[in-house]
Amino acid sequence: MNRCRITFQPGDKVAVVAEGTDLLAAAITAGLPIYSSCGGEGVCGRCKVRARGAFITEPRGQLSEEERAAGYVLACRTTAQGDVEVEAPPESRMEREQILTETARVGRLVGLFSEAGAVERDLEVGEREVFTHTPLATKLFLNLPPPTLEDSVSDLDRLYREIRRSRDIPSMQIGLANVKRLGGLLRGSDWRVTTTLGKRNGTVEVVLVEPGDTSARNYGAAVDIGTTTIVADLIDLNSGAVLGTRATQNRQASYGEDVISRIIYAEKEEGLERLHHAVVDAVNDQIASLVGEAGVDLNDVTCAVCAGNTTMTHLLLKVDPSFMRREPYVPPANAVPVVRAAEAGIKINPRGLLSCVPGVSAYVGGDIAAGVLASGLDEAEAPCMLIDIGTNGEIVLGNREWLVCCSSSAGPAFEGGGVECGMRAMQGAIQRVQIDPDTCEVHVATVGGAPAVGICGSGYIDCLGEMFGAGIIDKQGKIQGDAPCARVRRVEDQWTFTLVPASESGTGRDIRVTQADVDNLIRSKGAVYAAARMLVAKMGMSFDDVHHIYLGGGFGNYLNVRRSVRIGLLPDVPREKYVFLGNTSLAGARLALLSYEAMRKVHEIAERMTYVELCADPAYPDQFVASLFLPHTDIDLFPTVQKEMTCRKR
Amino acid sequence: MNRCRITFQPGDKVAVVAEGTDLLAAAITAGLPIYSSCGGEGVCGRCKVRARGAFITEPRGQLSEEERAAGYVLACRTTAQGDVEVEAPPESRMEREQILTETARVGRLVGLFSEAGAVERDLEVGEREVFTHTPLATKLFLNLPPPTLEDSVSDLDRLYREIRRSRDIPSMQIGLANVKRLGGLLRGSDWRVTTTLGKRNGTVEVVLVEPGDTSARNYGAAVDIGTTTIVADLIDLNSGAVLGTRATQNRQASYGEDVISRIIYAEKEEGLERLHHAVVDAVNDQIASLVGEAGVDLNDVTCAVCAGNTTMTHLLLKVDPSFMRREPYVPPANAVPVVRAAEAGIKINPRGLLSCVPGVSAYVGGDIAAGVLASGLDEAEAPCMLIDIGTNGEIVLGNREWLVCCSSSAGPAFEGGGVECGMRAMQGAIQRVQIDPDTCEVHVATVGGAPAVGICGSGYIDCLGEMFGAGIIDKQGKIQGDAPCARVRRVEDQWTFTLVPASESGTGRDIRVTQADVDNLIRSKGAVYAAARMLVAKMGMSFDDVHHIYLGGGFGNYLNVRRSVRIGLLPDVPREKYVFLGNTSLAGARLALLSYEAMRKVHEIAERMTYVELCADPAYPDQFVASLFLPHTDIDLFPTVQKEMTCRKR
Repeated sequence: MNRCRITFQPGDKVAVVAEGTDLLAAAITAGLPIYSSCGGEGVCGRCKVRARGAFITEPRGQLSEEERAAGYVLACRTTAQGDVEVEAPPESRMEREQILTETARVGRLVGLFSEAGAVERDLEVGEREVFTHTPLATKLFLNLPPPTLEDSVSDLDRLYREIRRSRDIPSMQIGLANVKRLGGLLRGSDWRVTTTLGKRNGTVEVVLVEPGDTSARNYGAAVDIGTTTIVADLIDLNSGAVLGTRATQNRQASYGEDVISRIIYAEKEEGLERLHHAVVDAVNDQIASLVGEAGVDLNDVTCAVCAGNTTMTHLLLKVDPSFMRREPYVPPANAVPVVRAAEAGIKINPRGLLSCVPGVSAYVGGDIAAGVLASGLDEAEAPCMLIDIGTNGEIVLGNREWLVCCSSSAGPAFEGGGVECGMRAMQGAIQRVQIDPDTCEVHVATVGGAPAVGICGSGYIDCLGEMFGAGIIDKQGKIQGDAPCARVRRVEDQWTFTLVPASESGTGRDIRVTQADVDNLIRSKGAVYAAARMLVAKMGMSFDDVHHIYLGGGFGNYLNVRRSVRIGLLPDVPREKYVFLGNTSLAGARLALLSYEAMRKVHEIAERMTYVELCADPAYPDQFVASLFLPHTDIDLFPTVQKEMTCRKR
Repeated sequence: MNRCRITFQPGDKVAVVAEGTDLLAAAITAGLPIYSSCGGEGVCGRCKVRARGAFITEPRGQLSEEERAAGYVLACRTTAQGDVEVEAPPESRMEREQILTETARVGRLVGLFSEAGAVERDLEVGEREVFTHTPLATKLFLNLPPPTLEDSVSDLDRLYREIRRSRDIPSMQIGLANVKRLGGLLRGSDWRVTTTLGKRNGTVEVVLVEPGDTSARNYGAAVDIGTTTIVADLIDLNSGAVLGTRATQNRQASYGEDVISRIIYAEKEEGLERLHHAVVDAVNDQIASLVGEAGVDLNDVTCAVCAGNTTMTHLLLKVDPSFMRREPYVPPANAVPVVRAAEAGIKINPRGLLSCVPGVSAYVGGDIAAGVLASGLDEAEAPCMLIDIGTNGEIVLGNREWLVCCSSSAGPAFEGGGVECGMRAMQGAIQRVQIDPDTCEVHVATVGGAPAVGICGSGYIDCLGEMFGAGIIDKQGKIQGDAPCARVRRVEDQWTFTLVPASESGTGRDIRVTQADVDNLIRSKGAVYAAARMLVAKMGMSFDDVHHIYLGGGFGNYLNVRRSVRIGLLPDVPREKYVFLGNTSLAGARLALLSYEAMRKVHEIAERMTYVELCADPAYPDQFVASLFLPHTDIDLFPTVQKEMTCRKR
């Protein structure tokens, strides 16, 4: 088969691929990920690039005649037949962006040790729980007595005996590779060695035996694998200190923006392989950067804990997720066994361990179990709620007695998918919007203050709220064509509202909100709210009975609660009930990495949580439809919004 | 590097090897193992072959001028420089021989099940112990309820849940490879699968998941890996029935006859590699033959238990044994972890398990622990003794309260090493000898009744006893040059005794016993006896206090107790105290394979046994020297021999 050379601009990045490879796959190979919401189905039109050279492309309606004339093609529908030069416009590229890396409030105390050597969790709600400091992998320096004729137990027994002098480990394991090296190693290091002891599926494994005393150098990685974003911490397992945090795009986004499109892609030839490598490469790059910056040897990273939704965990381990998208939505595994990180392709010490936080069901994964762990919800006396608004909107309700959860299929709208100018919160993304109801004047704030190139989630929440407040859309979300505002225009067959005109934008095109966008956004917000309400109702409660609502997810930090309530995304309860926790998935992964007690706890949490399949509930469709209004059909559910509207009207 | 083609006769076997490879290594490659007692050191002279072609050979004293003229060279000292034709004479070849494959008395009951489904052990001594039938790997057919929206636990949880319905397994493991296959497998087999559950280092592993009901097909291999001989059983794990037994030479013999020369060879470049492959290839060939004969699919062999001395176990697993030959004689491991058989190169089901019976020390290995298990010594009320006369002579003394053991470095003389006409009990080996004390007439019986080509262990024991009885050697073992017997001759610088003259032998040369041979044999028998006596004395006992003496090892079956006592190899106690048990190592391996209770017991035995290092005892040299007489310096220790001698003199 002929090989084709595909050169990407900017950056002059090159991929040499087989003839017939599509440009989307080539871009990943070249290290220049390109957006694609639909997973390469040619539907979303997000992967527009300009191409020159030998290729075959399918004409698609997502491209205007102008664009086609200018050489634009859809990368996913264009296959190389020879060498190709590709130029990727900014709106199609995934670049390093403003991603939540702090762990906000909960993170403040996670990883700190009290004098007793324990990890403290000190939440605002006044709960206090202490996990013992028992990392997934610990190092133990041993000064072994050399063998004599009187004390001639085998090398392995000598090692075990000395370990057991300081640790109570009834069942210990060691791999053959370590047994093979043992004899030479012990003698070559004058019987002074450091063992790394890892907790592995109910037993303790002697993961490593190293010459000399290396016990001061023991590191681990805690990784939150989101559908959209991957965030990794490098942690000193001895002190619990976070040495660095790194966030990047999940490069799988090129193959589909939400988990369903990824699962569909995984069913294609080589699909699973590609998705697996995309996430593994991203995690490896992060860990490599982190150790580089911290001056840590990669071999001293002895374990990793990953928390992700069920699809992400499956793709990380290259386990076929396809069964999850068909009724009855059953994943191959919720709690996957601890494996050697190398088995999954994760580059730390070649014998290092990888543990994935267990999930509950196909659509409530380890990220949520980790979130519950981090939030302390499972120990709360009064019922609390955790809402994680990622690409899925997962909701947990409960306390120390019971835990229920559901997933709301929020869709990717709040993360920039399925909306015309949607993008993630990167350079040039509109994240704050204000509309003067009288003059229809628009003020926007972009990430980095750069010229606007698109709108991110918090920007869309503002838009919806402000457009509603200014009467540009009605409570059903219909753009009012007769609104006295020049920004409202009919484009093709739908009404649109322009935030930034082409002349001021960073793309040379209008940055606008279309009727279809509004409909999508309302469906997303309605799905989250309806799910939360269903869950509360199922327990015979109302939102008033919920003591605290924790907001998790990378999105959480930029979420303006007041405006979210205004559009009916979040329930209208006193603002002081809301607690921003930031990336609870990462915080939980870190706890599980640093404390085996926390790891056991998160397994317990995953087992305790009762998953509620909303699709199976006949009441859900009504609840959902009732939520497709701004803020809701039943305005009494949103008293403060009602009040605000009444004030405005006055 | 040039490749050379080495052709071996008989059999026209070919090896293509790198220039510079010695002919001994080439012979192994070609599948024609050649004897070499010294491990390729050019010392023993056992690897004589006739060579033509392009090679370099070192002239060696072990070859007579005649032999050199006839084209004989030492295979270990001859390196190929181009193509070579090699003819291996019968005495240099290792061929399939008469090897003990029955397991004699103890074997009769091992593997039989009582109605309660248990393995019975019913020894002559009247002990009775029942091990539950809990094989190392069991198969369990599961008819899983297909998932529904109401019962949507993950595939893995569903599997675990169903397993736990019939088995109490708190800690269960599964490898990533099985998790990956699970989703497709369960659905493809209509939720009817068979799991193979293996016991692995304190937990239970789901080793295999197969579609449909394969629970009727579950097999295991029990293997005794002797320094000289490898014997394997194929066992139906469901019924405990032995489907077949196969014995072959340990092909490592080409690299040295005893464990010390193997360890020395292992230290050479590629030495460990070669020794490892030699034993693994032999075991694989055996298993392949056994499954072929029994009509069993190799994939249905799910586990193997190997029992061998400590060196054999290390070489099987390719663990460097070199430390064991230097004071304080410490092995890397006595109890090695259960591994996947494939990790050691053993070909059964690719995910099948390999467990090695644990040993006690560098020179008392898993074969002896297995022997104790099989003999029931560890449960005896009165003290009993187990003597295993293999290439080492290991001795165990004890009862249910205590167990001590030692190794006697018997040397390979009784297995045909270090003696001029020595050979193993194969076709043409003299195994019975009678000498008329009046006429000096000799009657020999050979294995298979073939013309004599050498003398095996039992033949040498007879020789020594008969030559002593006929006054051909005195009690110090000196051949009486003035004996009135034409068979006594001076050859070169020593006296010899001819058993079969060249004209009647199968080799065209005299089959004889030299003074050096007698000295070697006396050292061997002296070492075993002295060790046994030391061990008894250390416990403040005499042989009279020993209730039974069990004889184990492949040699055991051919050992004539009366004649062994006559030369002072075995203690002079009433014959009814002796119990032949045959291959106790294999019998123990089989028990451990069929019953996890027995496996735990043998671990307990290995831990309970106190190893006595005879070299470290100042009394040993005197005991040893006192044993270098026929039967012993202190004739009072051998009252029946004394009586017999007195009768003869009369």
